[in-house]
Amino acid sequence: MAMQCSSFNFGVECTDQAARCGRFQTAHGAVDTPIFMPVGTQATVKAMSPEVLKMVGSQIVLSNTYHLHMRPGEDLIAALGGLHAFMAWDGPILTDSGGYQVFSLAKLMKISDDGIRFASHLDGSRHLLTPEKAIEIQEVLGSDIMMCLDECVAHPSTREYVETSVKRTSLWAQRCLSARKSRNALFGIIQGGVYPDLRIQSAAEITSLGFDGIAVGGLSVGEGHDMMMDVLDVTVPHIPAEKPRYLMGVGTPKDIVEAVWRGVDMFDCVLPTRNARNGMLFTRNGRITLKQARYKQEQAPPDEHCSCYTCRNFSLAYLRHLYISREILGSILNTIHNLHFYLELMSDIRHSIKEKRFDTLRKQVKEMYDD
Amino acid sequence: MAMQCSSFNFGVECTDQAARCGRFQTAHGAVDTPIFMPVGTQATVKAMSPEVLKMVGSQIVLSNTYHLHMRPGEDLIAALGGLHAFMAWDGPILTDSGGYQVFSLAKLMKISDDGIRFASHLDGSRHLLTPEKAIEIQEVLGSDIMMCLDECVAHPSTREYVETSVKRTSLWAQRCLSARKSRNALFGIIQGGVYPDLRIQSAAEITSLGFDGIAVGGLSVGEGHDMMMDVLDVTVPHIPAEKPRYLMGVGTPKDIVEAVWRGVDMFDCVLPTRNARNGMLFTRNGRITLKQARYKQEQAPPDEHCSCYTCRNFSLAYLRHLYISREILGSILNTIHNLHFYLELMSDIRHSIKEKRFDTLRKQVKEMYDD
Repeated sequence: MAMQCSSFNFGVECTDQAARCGRFQTAHGAVDTPIFMPVGTQATVKAMSPEVLKMVGSQIVLSNTYHLHMRPGEDLIAALGGLHAFMAWDGPILTDSGGYQVFSLAKLMKISDDGIRFASHLDGSRHLLTPEKAIEIQEVLGSDIMMCLDECVAHPSTREYVETSVKRTSLWAQRCLSARKSRNALFGIIQGGVYPDLRIQSAAEITSLGFDGIAVGGLSVGEGHDMMMDVLDVTVPHIPAEKPRYLMGVGTPKDIVEAVWRGVDMFDCVLPTRNARNGMLFTRNGRITLKQARYKQEQAPPDEHCSCYTCRNFSLAYLRHLYISREILGSILNTIHNLHFYLELMSDIRHSIKEKRFDTLRKQVKEMYDD
Repeated sequence: MAMQCSSFNFGVECTDQAARCGRFQTAHGAVDTPIFMPVGTQATVKAMSPEVLKMVGSQIVLSNTYHLHMRPGEDLIAALGGLHAFMAWDGPILTDSGGYQVFSLAKLMKISDDGIRFASHLDGSRHLLTPEKAIEIQEVLGSDIMMCLDECVAHPSTREYVETSVKRTSLWAQRCLSARKSRNALFGIIQGGVYPDLRIQSAAEITSLGFDGIAVGGLSVGEGHDMMMDVLDVTVPHIPAEKPRYLMGVGTPKDIVEAVWRGVDMFDCVLPTRNARNGMLFTRNGRITLKQARYKQEQAPPDEHCSCYTCRNFSLAYLRHLYISREILGSILNTIHNLHFYLELMSDIRHSIKEKRFDTLRKQVKEMYDD
């Protein structure tokens, strides 16, 4: 189906039951899996310079096609040397298809097998996003890993509607593959809501098409942790072991270890960065909400055993002061800590898989983050 | 008058006509003058980590006593090891007295020779700021250079009112000196509005008291560049050459070179940091307003000859995108550039004074920034 083979390759290096350690190679460098991808919606991970992103251990970032298409537009970015040059990030970039943001942000006009008609959330201008257009935009941006346009249905949705969307997602997946002109990697996306047989059907159809990687979409949309895991339980075994598996838009530390336990390799989520700006910190001892008065005079850093810039230099009292005073530095320092936490968690996960002790780490993380 | 001598010392190392190069020593390190002090109002220079502040060349920062007294309070800061430890800035810190912010931000209740009664801009709570209290707060904060409480009058003010305020400022200056219990440096402040004889009278009174440095206050309050220079022309010659001279709250690049030309050694201003957040960049080729459509596709950085992190990595098109998209990284990158510009300007000024060619630099800067 694909017009060209991509330069992408992935290999599993070791396993611990279903959990795997691997590595994939892109034109902008290699990435060790399981990996978390910080979200850089508008060609910037909020409050982070590329230098600081590297410092906290980021190997790859995700950027949002919908946002970049709306502003400043992929042609402008291409004229400036592509997305990597534009945002001065020389590591790998994964872009989504734009579909999810059209569903969640834009004013939806009409969805059909042709594509999605919508009005921009910025200026109301009307657009049509087709599978071909989604690929074209991502190729113009110069993404290392492109995602297929899919239909992400709300939860709950009727079985009938999910059936239609699974069919449409498969149709669009083929059109995306056919539309690819570059050697950029392209991942297919499995849909199917919370219906086991539809997930299995979608997995069969998507994995048959020859994608570089396979994503599980349509989760973390309100179905809850347990149902998410149920869906992974039925879906992941139907994804060939030699393909990287990407759980889109997930999640909490608990979601991540449980998904890795089921064989997932890649994650992205706004949680560490958004929560940082809202004064919430992830630590090995659980969550910290800076608003709480208990931190007013707290001389200790968020985590005394954390080696991040924030924990090495600042007290909770200072971080609380910055948060209460709405200082930009608060967002910066909290984001540094939370991304460092997430990326170190992934590093710990990789090490524990290599040493066949991932189950212990998984249980520790679950205990710490029961919600 | 002073209860103790401070550990502060200053020496002029060379001159170029009235302009001087010098160096002062504090408990937290030495500072080369002429110097610009980035403003860290709420115990943070907005959008800058201490690490980045160092990277852009900051030698000393200013923090605002009024803001810190209101929130989180000097006692909390002291309990956390003082202002340096609290904000993780190990270089020198100058604090103002809090008076100016009481005049400009708080709801003023009453000013008398006793002090200033006011209501907090945060919660309306009532406070009395006296000369003794201003020193006490600054000592509790652990400031390296403290400022006297003075009365900064509006422009224009009647001669009669300015006379009263000059008298009060001298009275308060003596009380501040008497109140000092620490070895922290203490600077007196000359007032006198735009009345030459009152400036001379204030200079005579303040310089007679044995301060570690002398500030010129009550300028940059709407009188304009030319009148500001007129006031410096009559005032600076009355400040002993062996004292550092600090022009408070100033200013534009043009203000700074003209004030250095008249013998001023120290400056602080929110201009580079505030303008950065508003999308305005200072460059050797003049000002850049990122909002302008002309930068939409501009591949060049703000200044191709600038060595700052921002100019080494990002295009004007990207900075414009961040500004238009209200991204925090825009504030960070613009602040890095503007502070680097200001601090490099000060470095250029020092070198040109040493090489007796400051007048040429001054004229270049004036030509570039005629407003």
